[in-house]
Amino acid sequence: MGKKGLLIVLSGPSGTGKGTLCKELLTRVSGLKYSVSATTREPRQGEIDGVHYFFMSQGDFREKLAQGEFLEWATVYDNLYGTPRWQVEKTLTEGIDVILEIDIQGARQIKEKIPDGVFIFVIPPSFEELAARIKGRGTDPEEVIRKRLSAAGLELQYVSEYDYVVINDTVEQAANKLMAIVTAEKCRVKRRMYEFEPLVKEASDGTALS
Amino acid sequence: MGKKGLLIVLSGPSGTGKGTLCKELLTRVSGLKYSVSATTREPRQGEIDGVHYFFMSQGDFREKLAQGEFLEWATVYDNLYGTPRWQVEKTLTEGIDVILEIDIQGARQIKEKIPDGVFIFVIPPSFEELAARIKGRGTDPEEVIRKRLSAAGLELQYVSEYDYVVINDTVEQAANKLMAIVTAEKCRVKRRMYEFEPLVKEASDGTALS
Repeated sequence: MGKKGLLIVLSGPSGTGKGTLCKELLTRVSGLKYSVSATTREPRQGEIDGVHYFFMSQGDFREKLAQGEFLEWATVYDNLYGTPRWQVEKTLTEGIDVILEIDIQGARQIKEKIPDGVFIFVIPPSFEELAARIKGRGTDPEEVIRKRLSAAGLELQYVSEYDYVVINDTVEQAANKLMAIVTAEKCRVKRRMYEFEPLVKEASDGTALS
Repeated sequence: MGKKGLLIVLSGPSGTGKGTLCKELLTRVSGLKYSVSATTREPRQGEIDGVHYFFMSQGDFREKLAQGEFLEWATVYDNLYGTPRWQVEKTLTEGIDVILEIDIQGARQIKEKIPDGVFIFVIPPSFEELAARIKGRGTDPEEVIRKRLSAAGLELQYVSEYDYVVINDTVEQAANKLMAIVTAEKCRVKRRMYEFEPLVKEASDGTALS
């Protein structure tokens, strides 16, 4: 097995700014690729197939789904959305790192299929802060806010299923941490053994001085 | 359990420059402490107790040893050397990170006692490079070189017991990787649960909006 790219999964409760962090990382790290989702909804003005989404018919989507070709999928307002396994795996096999930003249910589905991905949970500096951000979104009635907060609270409990947790205090600091995580993961022995095995073999053969 | 410091163990075959990397890291990272070894040998001119070594009598050393108060120890030319557990653990408990540079046998002993340390294997860009460096040290006869190389070769096989591997191509690049590893390890969920458990609890209690 040769060098494989890293699958970096940014997840966490809604309202924690993981989308902004994902964009920031894509700007900073050259060669990092964003995983484009597939969807059955109609393209909107200016949306390009393969850039914003892979646009598919319901029939094609369901066929791929039946073949296990989605790392995760979900239904939103009668439309299907999913992460195309064939795209992600092709890119990883080419040695290119892939990042995707996804909700917690999606991340759980992905972890089942690609357990050696790097799962990062993005959280706000405090739960009060999260509450403030959710409230600050608009003029939603308190009932709606309370529901969102409660959902976010439940989501927060999944932190223990992740490899890393990054507090999104400032985009600058959080992005620095994400970059350090990527660098460190590339140094993990379990990801590098393919490279060292020949070296160790060479050493134990005693051929290096000959 | 509150915030604990990280124990960073730099190890690897001899001749890979882990000592230089350790010094570089201590210069760059403020607040990082070097673990001072204990020894029964006499202090040399200019050596300060508690800075270069903790100087101890054979009797005191052996008493501490019997009490399990060394994370690792070894005999070198009739003198005893060891890593004082009481010093390392006190510093970690204070939330301060500790770094130590040690041979592979020492690292194995430490891992048994502090398995949640960060174990980093430093290797040269290639085994030929290691051979070249060992040869370049001086005017040693080929027999000595061959022995060193063979020993280093055997040591290289321990890489799979480590968390990370860092290739010491240049001090600058290798030190950057070590710093990224330290930053990433501080984001690991398993090291942060003490911090998030109250947050999760607060969320599930639903007290955040009250």
